[in-house]
Formats: sequence, structure tokens, C-alpha cells
Amino acid sequence: MKGFKFVGIPCGIKKNGHKDLGLIYCEKPASAAALFTRNKVVAAPVILGKEQIQKGKCQAVLVNSGNANCFTGDQGLLDARSSITMVSKIFNIPQDLVMVSSTGVIGAPLPMKKFETGIPLLKEELDNGTLEDFAQAILTTDTCRKIVKETGIIDTKEGPREFSIAGVAKGSGMIRPDMATMLAYVLTDADIKSEDLNSALKTANEKSFNRITVDGDTSTNDTLLCLASGGGKACIRDGTSLKVFQGLLDKVCFQLAKLIVKGGEGATKVIQIRVKGARTREDAFKAAEAIAHSNLVKTAIYGEDPNWGRITAAAGRSGAFVDQDKMDLFFEKIPLVIKGCWLGLDAEKEAAKIMKADEIQITLDLNLGDKSDGFLFCDFSENYVKINADYRS
Amino acid sequence: MKGFKFVGIPCGIKKNGHKDLGLIYCEKPASAAALFTRNKVVAAPVILGKEQIQKGKCQAVLVNSGNANCFTGDQGLLDARSSITMVSKIFNIPQDLVMVSSTGVIGAPLPMKKFETGIPLLKEELDNGTLEDFAQAILTTDTCRKIVKETGIIDTKEGPREFSIAGVAKGSGMIRPDMATMLAYVLTDADIKSEDLNSALKTANEKSFNRITVDGDTSTNDTLLCLASGGGKACIRDGTSLKVFQGLLDKVCFQLAKLIVKGGEGATKVIQIRVKGARTREDAFKAAEAIAHSNLVKTAIYGEDPNWGRITAAAGRSGAFVDQDKMDLFFEKIPLVIKGCWLGLDAEKEAAKIMKADEIQITLDLNLGDKSDGFLFCDFSENYVKINADYRS
Repeated sequence: MKGFKFVGIPCGIKKNGHKDLGLIYCEKPASAAALFTRNKVVAAPVILGKEQIQKGKCQAVLVNSGNANCFTGDQGLLDARSSITMVSKIFNIPQDLVMVSSTGVIGAPLPMKKFETGIPLLKEELDNGTLEDFAQAILTTDTCRKIVKETGIIDTKEGPREFSIAGVAKGSGMIRPDMATMLAYVLTDADIKSEDLNSALKTANEKSFNRITVDGDTSTNDTLLCLASGGGKACIRDGTSLKVFQGLLDKVCFQLAKLIVKGGEGATKVIQIRVKGARTREDAFKAAEAIAHSNLVKTAIYGEDPNWGRITAAAGRSGAFVDQDKMDLFFEKIPLVIKGCWLGLDAEKEAAKIMKADEIQITLDLNLGDKSDGFLFCDFSENYVKINADYRS
Repeated sequence: MKGFKFVGIPCGIKKNGHKDLGLIYCEKPASAAALFTRNKVVAAPVILGKEQIQKGKCQAVLVNSGNANCFTGDQGLLDARSSITMVSKIFNIPQDLVMVSSTGVIGAPLPMKKFETGIPLLKEELDNGTLEDFAQAILTTDTCRKIVKETGIIDTKEGPREFSIAGVAKGSGMIRPDMATMLAYVLTDADIKSEDLNSALKTANEKSFNRITVDGDTSTNDTLLCLASGGGKACIRDGTSLKVFQGLLDKVCFQLAKLIVKGGEGATKVIQIRVKGARTREDAFKAAEAIAHSNLVKTAIYGEDPNWGRITAAAGRSGAFVDQDKMDLFFEKIPLVIKGCWLGLDAEKEAAKIMKADEIQITLDLNLGDKSDGFLFCDFSENYVKINADYRS
């Protein structure tokens, strides 16, 4: 990605010796936009980040995993600021262009000694590092790196101009939409103003990270940061190029969000629930959200059971306006319920076959209007319990 | 319990041959009050029950387990009505004094042949049956019977008069408050008007069944029915006796609600979360509810981990007004967080000892006002997943 360098190293924050400190470096100050958790309990880097992003510029992002620097009081803010100072000195960047993120255990103080040795190492490794190294360094319970890369083309008077967008994310537990719920960094070589970037990011977020859930818990550290280096050849200014950029940004964010669900703690399947025929968009959202968050629905899917009763019951309790005698329910294209009537065992056997897939589309048609909304979620296995019962021990 | 008879038999609705049909019989029409699920997808017995309870009288309640008679369309309503007709004929009771409840799998038609042979058997067994038989017959995935019995005394001009209240319930999954979330029958030999009974029941429900959760899913069949036979010596009419009655009813409902949480699917511990110092009661409710429903909190408790970060983070995302720098958090009487600061490893080791108990009280003081509220909930183990992944297979 033109205009960016990446690096990721182990510096001893994680007990297992895995990579735990990463940096995104921009050759010049990049246009920047960010969205943060709406949780009222927030980590120190989020408190600082909300201030810093006001300028719309950023040149370096330091991310550590293994420690969330959350619920760490004034010391946490001091620690976050001093890590910014270190990056600023060592990389020779103004302090107000350095951002930091942390993810990991809540409540423990940030191990500043590790930062003191780690940050100079980042500088040494900067020219050898890759996006993959950075993506690795920000993981916690994730089972794999989450990277998406796409390219787009805009038409200009001088001919077509290519641009790239890459996204990197971490997150597999404490995942529910209310802003994003994870750390995600979306980078582009396009030249775009920070206010346009901000507006595009909000739009993309609404359709991706704000429509996923793993376990219904909103993290204290959620950050979605987007940087545009302008190092490529595409300049995004007019309405048409903004639309093309938006389309590609939507795609990258959606794919990244899907990777998060796919890598959800204990997840074995990704489910897309689509609620349509709702009277209002809000009704569709409520019904889809209730289904996506239902432990009973999620465990049934893990058991490969097309348990339509739990799905319709979740819609019923969601607060959305529904009429059980009008509901249609489909597993992929197989109808299981039509106008509130179960279609019987043969239909259920067909649906049961679909349940064996890794990705399943479920559609609930309320048949009351023309509004729709959807969610991506994962199933719920014994492994989710194991991972989260043992996380700190 | 004076004025009541109970019976429970196996009639083949459950595949495993366990008891699955029960009846509460009142010697005379009893004062009756009931509350039903607020889920918009409701079972046929709930549709009928809402009509029938308007009269405030009831003489027999037929309950089957193994089949919820929900999402069964017009046939479900016909089946529920014909089971009422059968009870009416066989027990010689007017149809409008017979109520029915069903619990079990959603969507399958009610096996009416089993009812045709089962209901006459209930009549034959009526004089031999016990409350325990009835309590057994209404269970589904419950691991044990849920029965609470208490006695109270009211003062009258003729001297003290004793009365009894007994409660029976089923429910261990699809449990979240929004009305009750289970089947519960509360019976008293007191003489009390149905309008007073209704008002007392609503009050008791708000403090018990509406403050518990197992898995956050609201059932389609929830019913809390209270019958007063007047067969005892206590007549509840004036304010003082109503207060005594209310106190005992609250106690029975709370104990019954606690039994449901204790028997929650896969549960190993019961937790009482108390949120105090809130600016409004609604804030206290929201914070307590978010904590009680958090899978991350529940799995940590299963792992006997006093994970205060997950608890405060859940409060943070709850929508309640909170200030992380003012929060105090206690496990029983052990403080772990004071004014937003973690008290360190020694405090955490003390709290970890408490986590080994079967029942744990957690108190979150927001230090912002004087309002409080609480929830009872259970932890979350691999067994919850196993039970619910395999339920229909």
C-alpha cells in the first residue's frame, strides 16, 4: 500500500511470546477518520483518540495487544500519553499525529518497560515489516489474522486511476454492534479529504461492523480508524469518485466484519439473517438483532438444527411489530414456515441439509411492509464457554 | 393446601415416558389472576388464557409438557379448546372455568389422542395425586421439581388466622424477564378477591420473575397463574391483611424465581447482582440487566473468575448513566474496585475465594444517586450449549 509501512513484533506483553506490538507508519501525514465504542466505560487510548481525530490527520498508529489499558484511571492516560511521546521521538513525528490503541485484559496497568524496549525495535524493523506482521501483532483470542485487500478504479480527465483499500482487524469476543467492537484499521492510498473520509467511514460502518455480533458484549476499546495516504494516483473529490470509493470501502468493511464473525470465539458457522417485509427499518433491525443475539438460536445452529421456533420466538420478543400468522421463514431458499404455518417434516429435512454448510442465509419475511435489515452472526459452541471461562487464568 | 387437589401422570407426550400431563383441581371456583408472556409470538393456550382470566375465576388447570402448542395456527387453538372441553366433561366443570397451559417443543401439533386417554386417567388418579406429581408433570429440561411452600398469619377480630401459599414452577431455558418466562402456579387457601389477587400478583412478579434471567430468551408460553381457593380460615380484605398476604406472596414468588435460576440450563451458580447509587431506578435496572445477560460475565463466573472488567464494561454499554471514575464494585463484602480504581491482586485473590460458592452476591455502586435494582442470574457452562444444541434431536 503506497504511502504506508507496517511492522509487528513480540515485546513481552503477552505471556506466550507472540507478537503484541504493531505500528502503522505513514510517510506523510494521512487524512484520518475514526469511530469509537459507544460503551461509557472506555479505555485510555479511546479517550485520547477521540480528541486526536478532531484534526483529521495522523501519521503513526501504535497498537498493543495483551493489555487493554482500560479501567486504569489517570495512570492509564499518563501511560498512553507517554507511549505517544516515545513514538513521536523515535520516529520523529509530531505528538499530535500519533495515535494509540490497546486491546487485551481490562484493568491491568500498561507494562511501560516493555514499550520502552519495544518501540525502538519497531523502528529498527520498520523497513522489513509487512501488513501481515502488523495484523498478527494486534490479535488476542483471534484464531487467525484478518486482512482484506481490494482495488478500485475511478475515471478522471486524465484516464482511469487505480486505488487500493486494505483493512486489518482483530476481535473475536466482546463483539456486538454499537459502533464497531474491535480494532480495525482501514488504509487507502487514495487522496481524499478527512471530512469525506469520515462520512464514507460512517456509512460503511453502519452496513458492516454495526451489523455483526459474536456474543452481544460491546468492548471498551472499539476503534475503527481509516487512513488515506494519498500516495497512490487516485484523487477522490467529485461525487462520482466518492461513490466508487464508498462502494469499495463498504466492501472492505463488510468483508472484514465477516472475518470477525467467522473468527468469533468458538464459532463454527457464519449466519446472515435478513429480516424483510417490516413496517419500518427499525422493526427490521430489532427483529434481526434479537435473532442474531439469541443464545438459543445460536446453539441450535451449532447443533445444525433448523429450529425455526426459536427464530420466530426471538422476533416475537424483539419489540418489533410482528404478526405470527403472516411470517414466512426461509433457510437459504427452502421455506420452513409460510404465513405462520410450519411446512412439516420434509421441509425441515431439506433445511437440515443446509445447516451443514459453513455459511447460512436465513430470511424472515414479516409480510407487513417493505423495509429490511440484516445481521451477520456466528453460532455458539462449548468452545466459547471454555475460552471465556479460562481467559484470565 | 385446602380447597385444591393435584395430579400428574405420564401419557406419552414425552418420548422418555416421564410424567407429562398434570391438573390442578379446585373444589369450588377459585379467585384467579394471571400474567402472560409479552412475546408477540404466543402459544394457543396463552391466547385462550388471556380471554379466560378476565372473569377472575378458575376451577381447573390442565398442563402438559413436551409440546408447547405454539406456532400451531388455527389447529392449535382448536386443540386447546377441545382439551378444555374434555376436562369440562370429565370433571363436570363449566368450560369457562377450565384453563390450559402447554410447554415444550414449538411448532408440533398437540397429540390429541394422548389427551383423550390421559384426561380420564387424571380423573381416576385425582384422589391419589400430590403437588409433587403435578410439579413433576410440568417439567421439560428442568433438572428438578420446583416447589415452594410458606404459611402466614393475619390478625382478625376473632384472633389470628393462618393461611398458606404454595408455588410450583417449571423453566430452565428461554428464561428472561419480560413478564415471567416460564409456567408458574401459585396457590393459596386464603379467601381473597380476584382483583386484589391480581394486584398482589403484579407486585410480586415485578420483584421476582421479572428480575431473573437464564439465557435472555423470552418464552412464547410464559404463564404465571395464581389461584385462591378460600378453603382456609383467612379472609384477606383490609389493608393490613393485604400487606401480610403481599409479603408472603413476594417471598414465595422470589423463592420460586430463584429455584428457576438455580435450575437454569447448564447452571452451576446463582448470582444476585445489585446495582445501587444510580440516578434513576431505570438506570439501575438497565445496568443490572446488562450484567445479568452478559455471556462474558456469565462464563467468567462459571470459571470462578472475579472478572470485574467484564462487569463494569457491561454496565458501561447498558445505556445507563455511569461514570467509570465513581464506580465501586464488591464481591460479597470484598471491594475490588473503588472510585474506578482496581484494588490489586490481593483483593482479587480474596474475591476469587468467594467465587467458589454456589451463590454469590455482586454489588455495583454507581455513586451517582440513591436508586437501586437487581437481578438474579446463573452462570453459563458448556452444558448450556450441549443441552440447546441437542434439544430437538
